[in-house]
Amino acid sequence: MDPGIWCPIEGGISAPRGFKASGITAGLKASGRPDLALVLAPESAACAGTFTKSCVRAACVDLCARRLQQSGGRAQAVLINSGQANACTGDRGLMDSVRATRILADHLGLAEEQVLICSTGVIGVPIPMPTLLAGLEPLMGALSDCGGTAAATAILTTDLVEKQIALEGMFGDRVVRIGGMAKGSGMIHPDMATMLAFLSCDAGIEPAIWQAMVCRAVKRSFNAITVDGDTSTNDTLLAFAAGEALPEQHHPVLEQGLTAVMQHLAQAIARDGEGATCLIEVQVEGTVDEASALQIARTICGSSLVKTAVHGRDPNWGRIAAAAGRSAVPFDAEALAVWIGEHQLMQAGQPLPFDRDAASTALKRETVLIRCSVGDGLGHAKAWGCDLSDQYVRINADYTT
Amino acid sequence: MDPGIWCPIEGGISAPRGFKASGITAGLKASGRPDLALVLAPESAACAGTFTKSCVRAACVDLCARRLQQSGGRAQAVLINSGQANACTGDRGLMDSVRATRILADHLGLAEEQVLICSTGVIGVPIPMPTLLAGLEPLMGALSDCGGTAAATAILTTDLVEKQIALEGMFGDRVVRIGGMAKGSGMIHPDMATMLAFLSCDAGIEPAIWQAMVCRAVKRSFNAITVDGDTSTNDTLLAFAAGEALPEQHHPVLEQGLTAVMQHLAQAIARDGEGATCLIEVQVEGTVDEASALQIARTICGSSLVKTAVHGRDPNWGRIAAAAGRSAVPFDAEALAVWIGEHQLMQAGQPLPFDRDAASTALKRETVLIRCSVGDGLGHAKAWGCDLSDQYVRINADYTT
Repeated sequence: MDPGIWCPIEGGISAPRGFKASGITAGLKASGRPDLALVLAPESAACAGTFTKSCVRAACVDLCARRLQQSGGRAQAVLINSGQANACTGDRGLMDSVRATRILADHLGLAEEQVLICSTGVIGVPIPMPTLLAGLEPLMGALSDCGGTAAATAILTTDLVEKQIALEGMFGDRVVRIGGMAKGSGMIHPDMATMLAFLSCDAGIEPAIWQAMVCRAVKRSFNAITVDGDTSTNDTLLAFAAGEALPEQHHPVLEQGLTAVMQHLAQAIARDGEGATCLIEVQVEGTVDEASALQIARTICGSSLVKTAVHGRDPNWGRIAAAAGRSAVPFDAEALAVWIGEHQLMQAGQPLPFDRDAASTALKRETVLIRCSVGDGLGHAKAWGCDLSDQYVRINADYTT
Repeated sequence: MDPGIWCPIEGGISAPRGFKASGITAGLKASGRPDLALVLAPESAACAGTFTKSCVRAACVDLCARRLQQSGGRAQAVLINSGQANACTGDRGLMDSVRATRILADHLGLAEEQVLICSTGVIGVPIPMPTLLAGLEPLMGALSDCGGTAAATAILTTDLVEKQIALEGMFGDRVVRIGGMAKGSGMIHPDMATMLAFLSCDAGIEPAIWQAMVCRAVKRSFNAITVDGDTSTNDTLLAFAAGEALPEQHHPVLEQGLTAVMQHLAQAIARDGEGATCLIEVQVEGTVDEASALQIARTICGSSLVKTAVHGRDPNWGRIAAAAGRSAVPFDAEALAVWIGEHQLMQAGQPLPFDRDAASTALKRETVLIRCSVGDGLGHAKAWGCDLSDQYVRINADYTT
């Protein structure tokens, strides 16, 4: 994505003016690592959400979705606990989620429905409520407009690295900032999965317009990554926007920045996929529309055979062609062209002679680029994933044994 | 599947009366292993086919589909070469396929459209035609009513074991036999993939009825297995039926036998999945219909996290619940129950206390059974797969490097 007017700045989720964040060690994780985070947005913030499509979903997801619907897309705070997913925990799960937000809302002086909660960690394990509740006061005490990194750290479970970014753009002499943080490395670690993402923006925007913008950006970022094809019970994205209203003619540029923030976070998740040694970017072009291109790109990105070939630095065009072919998007096989990096391996549906060593070298880069053209259409899209290593299998097979 | 009246017999694809088969080493494979097979059915045999849904498909698949359509579902012979998939080979691919069947038809004294061809092996490599054509005479010379094993061996590529079966059933004093052979271990080996299956039956049946019966049996067998989620350019199933007509009231029992033959072959493919150490059978019940149950069962079977958990003998119900939840079949999460073997791990959407060691032992069996109930519906289905081992990754990553 062309960054356009947008430049990276420090501060993550708390970079936009008026936003505060904090992260502390409340004692929810046995490891003693930070495990409780809070994001606080300015009054009457718009809040857009996208949630896991799984029908086995945690109570906190139900709570977030319902409150956003009731409030017409407005919320001011989100509490995030890591360590326990609070999924498959029955009635107790929902009661705990409601209770935590109610008490936090009291403390913050907010209406209960302005406070949301996200949980990540082990499925089937409820939140140790006394521990969480005892953490609320120090968590609020730590709220700060430079608390982004602390919050980004406290939401991690098995991630190897924290994932945050902030961008700043000038609209005339008006500065707009967008911040974000995420956690996830695919639903890869046993029961310790979940993709969570949180965004902040200091431009005012109507909730319905913001929700639509967020959905489009999610489609081109978080919905374009695949690590192991598994979806969690708790996947949630929440995006807050509050501040001086941004005139409508600037919305396309705002969306460009929002998309860039989400793509950065999504790529960071793919790169952190368990056992991954590289990021794979698949570009597909020539389809009738963007959705078709995305579907082909995601199928290639998710193919175990493509992922293992990349891991082995094997320029195996046959696997790429086969994955494109089974994506359920119809195209003329005799129009298929395939590149790895700058090396073209197929043209008009047939293999080309190519320098195998050079193509293998292109697979050794930190970001491996695979490109497919399937026709003359104007549709194009990108998807991101990671290679599949024996390390992935060992980690996931040997967890409890 | 309840075998009902059906008992296993020797002979594979050539067990039904009137059918002949052969397999030879024509020299198509560098390894010197058998690589050319022929199946010959009695005159005016019905022939039903199902083919890969990939839009990158080999010329031989196009040829088979077109000839069966033109003949109204009748064919008498199929030639199978292993070593070269003849996919992504452009016009030459189709010309070679047509030429091979035309010459074979001449030799056999059949009309050209009565002869089909299937190829399996490396994508992008054409068939060495002089070698194949030189093999036709010895191949026909070897045709025999006990040639099933030779044929089943000659269609293999990277399979570890040959896959064949025959069943015999009595309809009053009438004996009916169904034979079958297959190859495939998932689209697992680099470019050396493809699922091929061939069936024979010595009962006469109208092509349209036979095709419908074959489609239903495929749905409950080959379409219910998943090894690595990849689909080949050449996947083909051809089922021949010829003999004294079987009265319509016996068709359900015939279909039962046909399904049992296909399920045996499909399970053999899953069990032979590269790096696999066990067969996984997933049973799903309580859905509104069979298709929904199959979709949930296939999603569980195909989950990398479930597959690695089984490999690690880890009774990880959370991964099973999460896979069921993301299958896109709606169900009430609070109705979910999960068993591994005879051990129930979840009830009413929540974990049960269970004996972890005993459940882990149930995962050490040759066939691992996972069962899910998602409601009160009458829909139920089974799917089969295999575990995911680090061996899978090593084989697929290290192929050309």
